[in-house]
Amino acid sequence: MSANLRIMPLGGLGEVGKNMMMIEYGRNIIVIDAGMMFPESDMLGVDHIIPDWQYLRDKKDNLRAIIITHGHLDHIGSLNHFLREFNVPVYATRLTRGLIEVKLKREHMLEKTTLHTFAAGDVIDIGPFTIEPYHVCHSIPDTVGLGITTPAGLIVHSGDFKFDPTPVDGWPTDEAKLAEFSSRGVLVLLSDSTNADQPGSTPSEAVLDDAFHRIMREAPGRLIVATFASLISRVQQVVNVAQRHNRKLAVAGRSMIENTKMARELGYLKIPSDMLVPLDQVKKLPPRQVVIMATGSQGEPMAVLSRLANNRHHSLHIQKNDTVVLSSHTIPGNEEMAYRVINRLFQRGADVQYGPQAQAHVSGHGGQEDLKQMIDILRPQFFLPIHGELRHLVQHAKLARELGVPDKNAVAIENGYPLDFAGGRMRIGKRVPGEYVFVDGSLVGEVGPELMRQRDGLAQSGFVTAIARYDRKKGKTVGRLSIITRGFVYEPDAEELFSQARAIVRSSSSVQRGTAPEQVQDKVEQALSSFFYRETRRKPLVTVVMLEA
Amino acid sequence: MSANLRIMPLGGLGEVGKNMMMIEYGRNIIVIDAGMMFPESDMLGVDHIIPDWQYLRDKKDNLRAIIITHGHLDHIGSLNHFLREFNVPVYATRLTRGLIEVKLKREHMLEKTTLHTFAAGDVIDIGPFTIEPYHVCHSIPDTVGLGITTPAGLIVHSGDFKFDPTPVDGWPTDEAKLAEFSSRGVLVLLSDSTNADQPGSTPSEAVLDDAFHRIMREAPGRLIVATFASLISRVQQVVNVAQRHNRKLAVAGRSMIENTKMARELGYLKIPSDMLVPLDQVKKLPPRQVVIMATGSQGEPMAVLSRLANNRHHSLHIQKNDTVVLSSHTIPGNEEMAYRVINRLFQRGADVQYGPQAQAHVSGHGGQEDLKQMIDILRPQFFLPIHGELRHLVQHAKLARELGVPDKNAVAIENGYPLDFAGGRMRIGKRVPGEYVFVDGSLVGEVGPELMRQRDGLAQSGFVTAIARYDRKKGKTVGRLSIITRGFVYEPDAEELFSQARAIVRSSSSVQRGTAPEQVQDKVEQALSSFFYRETRRKPLVTVVMLEA
Repeated sequence: MSANLRIMPLGGLGEVGKNMMMIEYGRNIIVIDAGMMFPESDMLGVDHIIPDWQYLRDKKDNLRAIIITHGHLDHIGSLNHFLREFNVPVYATRLTRGLIEVKLKREHMLEKTTLHTFAAGDVIDIGPFTIEPYHVCHSIPDTVGLGITTPAGLIVHSGDFKFDPTPVDGWPTDEAKLAEFSSRGVLVLLSDSTNADQPGSTPSEAVLDDAFHRIMREAPGRLIVATFASLISRVQQVVNVAQRHNRKLAVAGRSMIENTKMARELGYLKIPSDMLVPLDQVKKLPPRQVVIMATGSQGEPMAVLSRLANNRHHSLHIQKNDTVVLSSHTIPGNEEMAYRVINRLFQRGADVQYGPQAQAHVSGHGGQEDLKQMIDILRPQFFLPIHGELRHLVQHAKLARELGVPDKNAVAIENGYPLDFAGGRMRIGKRVPGEYVFVDGSLVGEVGPELMRQRDGLAQSGFVTAIARYDRKKGKTVGRLSIITRGFVYEPDAEELFSQARAIVRSSSSVQRGTAPEQVQDKVEQALSSFFYRETRRKPLVTVVMLEA
Repeated sequence: MSANLRIMPLGGLGEVGKNMMMIEYGRNIIVIDAGMMFPESDMLGVDHIIPDWQYLRDKKDNLRAIIITHGHLDHIGSLNHFLREFNVPVYATRLTRGLIEVKLKREHMLEKTTLHTFAAGDVIDIGPFTIEPYHVCHSIPDTVGLGITTPAGLIVHSGDFKFDPTPVDGWPTDEAKLAEFSSRGVLVLLSDSTNADQPGSTPSEAVLDDAFHRIMREAPGRLIVATFASLISRVQQVVNVAQRHNRKLAVAGRSMIENTKMARELGYLKIPSDMLVPLDQVKKLPPRQVVIMATGSQGEPMAVLSRLANNRHHSLHIQKNDTVVLSSHTIPGNEEMAYRVINRLFQRGADVQYGPQAQAHVSGHGGQEDLKQMIDILRPQFFLPIHGELRHLVQHAKLARELGVPDKNAVAIENGYPLDFAGGRMRIGKRVPGEYVFVDGSLVGEVGPELMRQRDGLAQSGFVTAIARYDRKKGKTVGRLSIITRGFVYEPDAEELFSQARAIVRSSSSVQRGTAPEQVQDKVEQALSSFFYRETRRKPLVTVVMLEA
């Protein structure tokens, strides 16, 4: 059997991109990125979701390396979990490596990990793969896409990208390299679909300079700019504009402090030393000379912005004439939290600028015109949209078809479907079984649908447990009856309800002598459940325990 | 004491608009609208939220009437709860009355309620109030604003409105009446703030005609248009365009079927009889001759669109070449649900058009230019922004100040703050205590913060209850030990964990002879909680019951 090339996005049920790509040739596997997702609001008690890598477990010895395109959480967030199982070398650019080190240090995993640094323009040979990272513009510096030459042909992985002629760091996406790939002939393009439903080109980061100039000019007091902790380029922009307005900079929020410190040390972020002030010193400055970079633009309850909104920050408090700018877009699912924080900031007297009207954010992902440009340059034989929800993948595949990729060569597949390339053809394989892998406390993957259903039931209506001693010989309960309830009704208001419930336990457990306690339990549970539903139209989880007297 | 005029938005904690306004003069009170809100995602088990009307309970005899501006749920949703407590006459226009009747009928309350019909242009005298409803454009026909003459001056209530020169029903907002109010002198304007953070004017409904023509021309098969069940005007637009494309219309979803039936009977919706086909007949038609109006544009789990996405509709199934159009905006908090449905519709092979790119929705609420126009025409002495979150109210008040309303005369107040008018001055009174009133099953207002906390704890990590018989004389547990757990860990995977837990119950309940069972319970609870946290980093609710042996 001759070796095939197999490409597969790893993940669970498959609807949503978790940004982890596997490339396999013969007995050699490399993985690109190891992202994570935050849970949706009905995934109760889940901290985050990581890809399902069952497929790799069966081929552990074939795994050669993991290559990271950039340092955002949706590309490195599950790396610690991954490395705990697969201790393979990690390849990353310098800044990305810095962000990975911050993360692995927290997990006490840094010493055990082999990290290789590369730069855009390097050539890396791993088994049968020759990897050529090239620079792309994204909302964090030092992001790369990858050319991967395999015996079956050249794969191009776009990373997260946009075409920005005037990026903050002055380093545009390497179109020359893309053109060179194109001249060699591209077998398959894997391309970022995040903004595949957005018409037009994504604006350059440079357009934000004007917005920040306007905002800093108009803000009558302190300016608080909230964004993602990893948006290093945004911090640089605020720094540049703030200098011109004679504002000093303070940084608030643990992850943002760590990231800016590291990025400064590595030279990716340039802040004059006399411009940086510790957060607890800002109160000594005139308000118009202050700008504070903060975390929490998604309304995350533990981040700085939310603590300001609830007046629970240890050293910073919203005061009249503060201006708060949300320099980010809201991730779907976070709107409620974010608007709640915005309302409370208004309530405390701040002016808040948010949403498209604030003009204080541009996406780091290319819109439809950027995506078309990528396809146009590379003219790939096959096209696989990656990074995004199914709605994005489908619309991206449609774009590729419009640009001449044959219908059956451009496919939107969900995580877990393998693509096999052989003899100039592509075949979609049978889906590799896989589930959402939930991380909850220290448990990984042990939290499944059954547990979710139980939590959902408890969240809706709580539980009632009735405990009694049952005398089998007499066929009835004896002694004290205990009822435990949480989350069902407010107990002090429900004395009457529970006194009726007790009567029902007594009466429905009065049975024929000799009846087994299990039978009585079932009967009482049914009687109680019906009673509660009749009285409240709610369905608490009812459990009855009959201890034999 | 001479009588004061008091205006107060009724509600709970006050952050969010629930659209219920009280106007009081001496011993006379009228109420405008009785809205409801859907719960946010952390309000577990709550069906919906209604205003807190404690203030009215103390003045029941003074309440003269409730006037409804239009038939959307956020203006009539709590009417059944309200009427159960306050059996006062309800005033509404014909279509609004129709929608109220549909609702009250479901609740078996129609016979007990007194309903008065009025039309824009009528004059209604209620106690010291003279009420002059005037027509406004909104996304449902027969919407009004209200001029309310009181002995203290003229109040204008905007209703929900926009200025649309080309509305679907050809009846624009009555600017002549507004000008007349203005010439009489307006004491206070209460104006819709829903879109106060949107620059520009809201586009006319007419712009949708082009979009629907394009969509119907391009859709290669059936077209499914999802929108709110109460968006009667949108249904009319789809009907008008569908006629031109020779498509028949079917309606799916109980509330949409009821509403269109009622609106047709009252003459607010014009559908030729031969155009309307029952849903189960559409399969007999060529796909290109079908358009289906459906509920579920917010991703609501029980509505039509979600059932189509999950292939759980009894008579309708997504097929290749179906086009689904979401003709609505997504209410903040519903994005996750809506995108999940969209992804699944793509998965089943439909093309889905959604979001601003689809251009298949315009708002029924005026943007900043509409809002300014309203203020400019009326030139009120005082300005109270209503309908919206605090962020909208604050930005609306700012607009009014920019247009010359004195700073202290334009105030953004939260629900429950009374405004008193006397001697040409306005005073913000002390907040009337009030809470979110949650409706959960048949319980109203009994679900409070303590219960929410319990449900949240259970949702995060479930519970463990340990039950043992305790022999006080021996100072230890005897006999069988029962452990009940739900939502904590997946039991089949956790045998080892629970066998250790049992050992901990045994050992920590081995105490000095004669120890009271309550003391033992506390001790064992603490030991178990610590053990579970150590092992899993999770905190289930632990309860221990020691029945005396």
